[in-house]
Amino acid sequence: FESKLPNLGTSIFSQMTALANQFEAINLSQGFPEFDAPELLKKQLNHYVLEGVNQYSPSSGVPRLQQQIAQLAKRKYAVEIDAAQQVTVTSGATEALFVAIQALVREGDEVIVFDPAYDSYQPAIELAGGKSVNIALHAPSYAIDWQTVAAAINSKTRAIIINTPHNPSGKTLKQHDINALKALVIEHDLYLISDEVYEHITFDKQPHLSVLRDEELFARSFVISSFGKTFHSTGWKMGYCIAPTDLCEEFRKIHQYVTFSSFTPAQHALADMLEQQGEHVDALSEFYQQKRDVLSNALQDSRFSILPSEGTYFLLLDYSDVSDLNDVEFCQWLAEQAGVAAIPLSVFYQHPSNDKVIRLCFAKNDQTLIEAAHILCQL
Amino acid sequence: FESKLPNLGTSIFSQMTALANQFEAINLSQGFPEFDAPELLKKQLNHYVLEGVNQYSPSSGVPRLQQQIAQLAKRKYAVEIDAAQQVTVTSGATEALFVAIQALVREGDEVIVFDPAYDSYQPAIELAGGKSVNIALHAPSYAIDWQTVAAAINSKTRAIIINTPHNPSGKTLKQHDINALKALVIEHDLYLISDEVYEHITFDKQPHLSVLRDEELFARSFVISSFGKTFHSTGWKMGYCIAPTDLCEEFRKIHQYVTFSSFTPAQHALADMLEQQGEHVDALSEFYQQKRDVLSNALQDSRFSILPSEGTYFLLLDYSDVSDLNDVEFCQWLAEQAGVAAIPLSVFYQHPSNDKVIRLCFAKNDQTLIEAAHILCQL
Ligand SMILES: CSCCC(=O)C(=O)O
Ligand SMILES: CSCCC(=O)C(=O)O
Repeated sequence: FESKLPNLGTSIFSQMTALANQFEAINLSQGFPEFDAPELLKKQLNHYVLEGVNQYSPSSGVPRLQQQIAQLAKRKYAVEIDAAQQVTVTSGATEALFVAIQALVREGDEVIVFDPAYDSYQPAIELAGGKSVNIALHAPSYAIDWQTVAAAINSKTRAIIINTPHNPSGKTLKQHDINALKALVIEHDLYLISDEVYEHITFDKQPHLSVLRDEELFARSFVISSFGKTFHSTGWKMGYCIAPTDLCEEFRKIHQYVTFSSFTPAQHALADMLEQQGEHVDALSEFYQQKRDVLSNALQDSRFSILPSEGTYFLLLDYSDVSDLNDVEFCQWLAEQAGVAAIPLSVFYQHPSNDKVIRLCFAKNDQTLIEAAHILCQL
Repeated sequence: FESKLPNLGTSIFSQMTALANQFEAINLSQGFPEFDAPELLKKQLNHYVLEGVNQYSPSSGVPRLQQQIAQLAKRKYAVEIDAAQQVTVTSGATEALFVAIQALVREGDEVIVFDPAYDSYQPAIELAGGKSVNIALHAPSYAIDWQTVAAAINSKTRAIIINTPHNPSGKTLKQHDINALKALVIEHDLYLISDEVYEHITFDKQPHLSVLRDEELFARSFVISSFGKTFHSTGWKMGYCIAPTDLCEEFRKIHQYVTFSSFTPAQHALADMLEQQGEHVDALSEFYQQKRDVLSNALQDSRFSILPSEGTYFLLLDYSDVSDLNDVEFCQWLAEQAGVAAIPLSVFYQHPSNDKVIRLCFAKNDQTLIEAAHILCQL
């Protein structure tokens, strides 16, 4: 059977988690928290299940949840979102990304993507008949040179995908980045997909610069977020897309044929959670900053060099002084022999980089982080 | 914004449910049960949520659930399915259909579809760059003329989509249909997508002729089913695809970038349910046959003529003797003025038929069915 995605196999996240399980390694590879969803969220989910709220929700989401999503955007970014016309609940941010890409990309279109890039962007673009044009960013700064971006734009360019805070680098876009991006999007009549799934996890008192804040840029954007990251519930697969009304309409048209709707009781429970415990969201940055610091501090005496993490729950390490292996081999060795699973960064590049960098997920209990760091300090 | 699906709007199911809610009509339109998911299923879901099983499942599904799905196929159809290599859990049968179509259909491919067809097939085919070739079936028999199918096959034909028991007609394929289908698929080197979401709802002691039963045909097939229909939990959006190993591999490759995985606690709960209360599945045909008969009997004195329903939870009515309106107008009138929401059949056709037929969902309490029938008897 001839594959439509001949160069792709099982995702690196599935591979490394399987390896971690096989070798009983501490799993700092695939990004998911070791701690549980908030009690209220679980309690409310159970309440709705028992109450019998178990049939299809509206395809674009339960109205109460759409409203809470709009409220959250208002509270955090001081913007007015039309809950009924601009918010669509999806089965995880992955579905939202896939649908947004399907909505935009036509046969022959090009989409600008920044490497290291989340692994679903490129296959989704290719399945839509488009081509990703990958601009590589590198350690330690992962800074975007906007002149390089301008030079990559041509008449086929349809869209740019950004991700801030950025997985895997932990880098956040700054105001000058948003300004440069906006100038390009508007000058060249492009669309923007803004992957903001870590929007509530930014460190050192930096605010998150959501695309929602800029009316003109938002008018050409799909803004995507995730409840899995925010509420420690990655297995619930709840995400959403906020888009201006015309783009949202096209998004919903496609969404109704991709999954139609998402787990109904969880939508009600999330609405309750946002309504009653908004402070959970506000406390998330501090919560994860402490985790970042526990891990970084415990690694001070190692031979790894620690790259800055401004957001997300990921930390990059340069292992040049530890091993000569390439990063895929090093991660394999690390899981099998040392007992810590990490993600090699080269797999996020279209043209594998030679950077000797790995990604650790610090959404773990302090003790787990300290144990892992203890192992890494001995290398 | 130029739509990729310019001829499509909001799905008829969303439209009619919205109309039913607006006019407080008895909603026999969108297919979902009025009764709740089984207690054990709900209890187990809550158990896993509270236990903290709330992070990503493997992309292809929780192994215990994959095994239970293979067991069910073995028990019901006496076939050996490799749980690890051939079963993928999806976010509803809608996702499974979408992914199977993406896996098969390339730019320029044709896919044979039988009208009246479920509304997601055609947009999914078009998003993949293909074209649906629709063969219209008509009331009252909705029989397939396999010579017409043979004549529709050409060098561009990639696949055939069947749906048995058939939504909306309630028709089931017979052994001679499967034989004719198999001959065509094999002779022309085609693939098959077999939508069997109502596999456990067949009436009058007819067995369900799953494509899984035929080894040679299965070797070229994606077989799709749904837990929503089986366990009265359409809002949980849990479905699956069974495919031979090579096709399954491609299916999973795409699935991991469409949704990655599905609601984890529900997967464990469904595994428990299948393991501990298999009799629920076995009793489903009788349960729904009784509903069909309650509705049919209550309509005996109406001016509608009742078409045979051999499976699914739908019943078709011919309203030629009741109204001269076309079926869309008639359904609108019925919801707004008479207080019963139904689905017009013409929307399931590429070239709207003039048949005066509407679909009623009988997955409702007897009292609801009798009330609706009472209204319809007065027209
Ligand atoms: C969908 S599995 C990947 C989870 C994740 O976002 C990551 O590890 O980067
Ligand atoms: C996904 S909403 C449609 C439900 C259904 O299968 C039907 O009504 O035919």
